[in-house]
Amino acid sequence: MRQYIADNQDRFLDELFELLRIPSISSDAEHSSDMRRCAQLLVQLLVDAGADSADVWPTDGHPVVFGQKIIDEKLPTVLVYGHYDVQPVDPLELWKSDPFKPEIRDGAIYARGANDDKGQTFMHIKAFEYMVRTGCLRHNVKFLFEGEEEIGSSSLEKWVRDHSEMLACDIMLVSDTTMLGENVPSINCGMRGLSYLEVVVKGPDKDLHSGHYGGAVANPVNVLCDMISSLIDENGRVTVEGFYDDVVELSEADREMLGRAPFDIDEYKKSIGIPDVKGEAGYTTQERQSIRPCLDVNGIVGGYTGEGAKTIIPSSARAKISMRLVPNQLSSKITELFKKHIMNIAPPYVKVEVFEHHGGDGFLIPISSPAYKAASRAISEVYGIEPVPARGGGSIAILAAMQQILGADPLLMGFGLERDTIHSPNESYLLSQLFKGMESIALFYKYFDK
Amino acid sequence: MRQYIADNQDRFLDELFELLRIPSISSDAEHSSDMRRCAQLLVQLLVDAGADSADVWPTDGHPVVFGQKIIDEKLPTVLVYGHYDVQPVDPLELWKSDPFKPEIRDGAIYARGANDDKGQTFMHIKAFEYMVRTGCLRHNVKFLFEGEEEIGSSSLEKWVRDHSEMLACDIMLVSDTTMLGENVPSINCGMRGLSYLEVVVKGPDKDLHSGHYGGAVANPVNVLCDMISSLIDENGRVTVEGFYDDVVELSEADREMLGRAPFDIDEYKKSIGIPDVKGEAGYTTQERQSIRPCLDVNGIVGGYTGEGAKTIIPSSARAKISMRLVPNQLSSKITELFKKHIMNIAPPYVKVEVFEHHGGDGFLIPISSPAYKAASRAISEVYGIEPVPARGGGSIAILAAMQQILGADPLLMGFGLERDTIHSPNESYLLSQLFKGMESIALFYKYFDK
Repeated sequence: MRQYIADNQDRFLDELFELLRIPSISSDAEHSSDMRRCAQLLVQLLVDAGADSADVWPTDGHPVVFGQKIIDEKLPTVLVYGHYDVQPVDPLELWKSDPFKPEIRDGAIYARGANDDKGQTFMHIKAFEYMVRTGCLRHNVKFLFEGEEEIGSSSLEKWVRDHSEMLACDIMLVSDTTMLGENVPSINCGMRGLSYLEVVVKGPDKDLHSGHYGGAVANPVNVLCDMISSLIDENGRVTVEGFYDDVVELSEADREMLGRAPFDIDEYKKSIGIPDVKGEAGYTTQERQSIRPCLDVNGIVGGYTGEGAKTIIPSSARAKISMRLVPNQLSSKITELFKKHIMNIAPPYVKVEVFEHHGGDGFLIPISSPAYKAASRAISEVYGIEPVPARGGGSIAILAAMQQILGADPLLMGFGLERDTIHSPNESYLLSQLFKGMESIALFYKYFDK
Repeated sequence: MRQYIADNQDRFLDELFELLRIPSISSDAEHSSDMRRCAQLLVQLLVDAGADSADVWPTDGHPVVFGQKIIDEKLPTVLVYGHYDVQPVDPLELWKSDPFKPEIRDGAIYARGANDDKGQTFMHIKAFEYMVRTGCLRHNVKFLFEGEEEIGSSSLEKWVRDHSEMLACDIMLVSDTTMLGENVPSINCGMRGLSYLEVVVKGPDKDLHSGHYGGAVANPVNVLCDMISSLIDENGRVTVEGFYDDVVELSEADREMLGRAPFDIDEYKKSIGIPDVKGEAGYTTQERQSIRPCLDVNGIVGGYTGEGAKTIIPSSARAKISMRLVPNQLSSKITELFKKHIMNIAPPYVKVEVFEHHGGDGFLIPISSPAYKAASRAISEVYGIEPVPARGGGSIAILAAMQQILGADPLLMGFGLERDTIHSPNESYLLSQLFKGMESIALFYKYFDK
């Protein structure tokens, strides 16, 4: 595969750049034609790489791309999952280059989706192309690329349920996560779940003059701040009633094993520019962001936010609030607990509404499984270092649902790095990781058997 | 004057509408040419009305309009203060008609500035015109119209200091406030002061993926909410250290007198669409919004606030926070106490900055003064009811400063009504109040002597 990459590198980058140039932002309805264009291009890439068939499938939302090559029903089947939608790009002014005009700087591709997840998805198409063209493919391979991962995969679960026979597989192979470092390869053995909601506080039916009414009328921003502030206690624990009921405490041995991954707290703080860390009492930073649940406000807005000053009591205020969950916490249950809690703490002098955005359960992957072992061997060979098992803090909401529907475990072979700043301005993906990822994936197929 | 109004009504409205069509939004730099255009039009209106001179005077910010007619140095001199700048118009979609295309509906003019303060300022120009043209003017009259009232009058204090001799007067006459009701005329005998600041909380140097970092990194929005929530205690009192030190408690007799103004709490709640009132324990709604200081968030923003959902820990969050002050609380002192308090409660895991917007002191006007008595007699004659003294909750920051520099008291003869929704969409001004205001002002001159 290494030689094949060297021989085809320029073509690979041309193809990937074409994919990255499409602004497939799933959360913005204005980009729905871009979504379709991106799906069409993926179909073309799959067919060119050697798929027997590949098609754009409509869903209730953005379309799904499905393609496959079945060489022998008796051989193991790998289902590759990826997503072609990307996060919004604001604040645009912080990008050093246009997010949809990919360019290479210092050995990395800079573009929205360079890593998440177009770049990582592309590795699978090219590893597949290599195996087909060199005649070494000894698995059935199916590809499922969705267009709604960044907005909660709301249409995919139904689509997967409706096409579960077509999607039948022995393992789901996914590259949508990070490694601990370029020299600290790791394999994700668990992800957090998610509940994402929006709280709206409504006060007066219009903005009021803050001089005439100030002091006598509840201010929706102040009330929302009170409510948000009460959601996390002084020990950094979420106060939603019942929130921790289903959280399984890890054994000291498990915590010790996960704690082996190298971690430099000063380097961590420096890399994201914070004066100090903060989180749940009694847990390390690594634990707080992987094996512990949490609550964050993702966005808040209310009143006058323009230049200068305006003396009003805002009519309303709203906040997007999400909770990361750990395996065994059910997203649907937490969402209900949150809604109930918010309505319980809503004071009588305002109107409060709660809306659901999306969610999904967390999951764990057994380190002793054949797939994990094959991935570990493949990565060891490419990186020269045995990968460590790691728990991811992010969520791929749909994977827990697919695991249940298809009866196959996901395997998270991610090649992203923290430095890639996915979801932020100047998202990037190292060329070295792109090519090592392709090589590792090809070797995974070499070593994987059920 | 009543006959003069009847004879000239159409021309008056044409002239006022021309003034209202100019989008003189002082907080938006894009409107600076509109500000100059508006000032020029006021000069023209003053000259046409009979001023000996009127000019646009440059300041460090938006220009000041000054005009005068001196008929005898020995006669009392009235300085009319008004402002030609208006509040921003957002949210624009809530306006039933274009804010800068005035129209009359149900006996009221709808436009930004219809009341605050173009409409109310216009009454003074027309009362003056009447007195000049009918030969009954027996005062020297000076007009000072500024263009920065809505943004804190930041340039005016210096300009007034530099031109204090030119501005010398016996009384400052101001119409920039409300009456308690059409059938409950009132005169403002005090206004609150203001301190307006902005608090910025900075966390990571870029937005972070809330899955990868959630639980381990302080979220600037959550931190800002914690800080804001702590600023008001469970009794509705501001927690800034020293905030109440200079507040003078009113005597029971004074509270009783101010409490005589008719007030219907159910009507109040209904008029602004709130389920219940909220404020400092131990005080009535009327007291909370006039004789007591308070704190409000005027705007807050942080993180992703667009359509749908984005899973980030925002890099920063900011809130515009203002405090209404009562006479004897110094704005400059409260501003310093607030800054000190914010830095004291700022936690170590974020960076916190505080910026000043603007402020001004509150003031009281003696009910026994000749000016108050003349205004009371004038309004009694026009409305057929004796006006009650009332304390206003709003602030005209510059008046306290001018009172000190010029050694003359302000008199607040306001003809606005709550229904006018100044600072909000669909600002309006009743034609009946516009014309009764002109008449009352003309009668004020009749009865006022030093």
